[in-house]
Amino acid sequence: MDSAPSARTRVQRLPARGVYDATTLAAILDEGLICHIGFVVEGQPFVLPTTYVRQGDHLYVHGSSASRMLKTLAGGVDACVTVTLLDGLVLARSAFHHSMNYRSVVVLGHARAVTDLAEKRRALDALLEHVLPGRSSQVRKPNDKELAATLVLAMPLKEASAKVRRGPPLDDEEDYSLRCWAGELPLRVQPLTPIRDPRLPTDVQTPQSLADYRRGDA
Amino acid sequence: MDSAPSARTRVQRLPARGVYDATTLAAILDEGLICHIGFVVEGQPFVLPTTYVRQGDHLYVHGSSASRMLKTLAGGVDACVTVTLLDGLVLARSAFHHSMNYRSVVVLGHARAVTDLAEKRRALDALLEHVLPGRSSQVRKPNDKELAATLVLAMPLKEASAKVRRGPPLDDEEDYSLRCWAGELPLRVQPLTPIRDPRLPTDVQTPQSLADYRRGDA
Repeated sequence: MDSAPSARTRVQRLPARGVYDATTLAAILDEGLICHIGFVVEGQPFVLPTTYVRQGDHLYVHGSSASRMLKTLAGGVDACVTVTLLDGLVLARSAFHHSMNYRSVVVLGHARAVTDLAEKRRALDALLEHVLPGRSSQVRKPNDKELAATLVLAMPLKEASAKVRRGPPLDDEEDYSLRCWAGELPLRVQPLTPIRDPRLPTDVQTPQSLADYRRGDA
Repeated sequence: MDSAPSARTRVQRLPARGVYDATTLAAILDEGLICHIGFVVEGQPFVLPTTYVRQGDHLYVHGSSASRMLKTLAGGVDACVTVTLLDGLVLARSAFHHSMNYRSVVVLGHARAVTDLAEKRRALDALLEHVLPGRSSQVRKPNDKELAATLVLAMPLKEASAKVRRGPPLDDEEDYSLRCWAGELPLRVQPLTPIRDPRLPTDVQTPQSLADYRRGDA
């Protein structure tokens, strides 16, 4: 476990859950599908969900060039990007010791608009690959008009920390004699049956990759 | 669809996705397990995940009395609480029109610390019931020491809005002739096999409610 990159990214509550090594951070970011971005407008914090992708030591997000959130972030304001994977319920014998198993990453920093067209195209491909590997080569690529209508932001992973809880509940010693069920209920994001677009020709097969879809190794 | 409770909660990007009626908001909040809370410390926004519960027209969150986030929020600072349910991938024929189906709620406002002990106990019961119905009556209730070590915050749902996307991709007309698969891949949070606490007596049965665990109606 490396040390925190800054005082303000050091995990404060339950510091033993803090993790700072790049491999753990990357694994969490690569498994997640959405992040929550925090930014401030006239003193009011806003937290909005969006998709993202990690490429090396940067996160990329994208959206409409008209998006208030993206335009605000592109101005280089202080931002926070958080990704949370909920791994399960932790059911203790006392109400007090109930918890969740989770892995989360918090990134602080400033975003920059990606203006280089090659980097922008690479980031958009990567955003699609992050959601569904192989997809970027199967679909029509963005044209110039679509590229212009899309704002891509890059945020460095310089100031980032993870927090992880796993394992069974930790009850007070005297509560272990209670007879209520205790343990973990693991939760996973899982696919249901793919729904074909109503206008998809009937002879286009549903790819097996959709039935087999999963996030992470678990 | 009612109107937005304030200009700053009106959905700005794709306003047709904005929803403001209390029933829709409640359904989203009651299905989610975690929220992301945004708050500002010395100009820097932070976004941290935590559990919550809706009771009537308030959200309750809780945590350690030593939590920086909760102590900051209890001071009545501007806050934002966001709950996002990811319902599926939306796979279009063009990269540009890929999307996600989701339901999210954004709440702006100020939290207050719950100091009335009866309200605090009710909120803690409700937090447990939200995660697993029936659980609060099966476990040891919080004692005075645990109550003192727990900070419970209430945040009114006065200034809240939801954003919802559902349904198939919306491609450009000329792209419907492309042969790539298009449609939705629904995603659900689903339970895996419960993991018994290593110290649980072998004759305590795993309740069926855990095997049947689900969120929402879907």
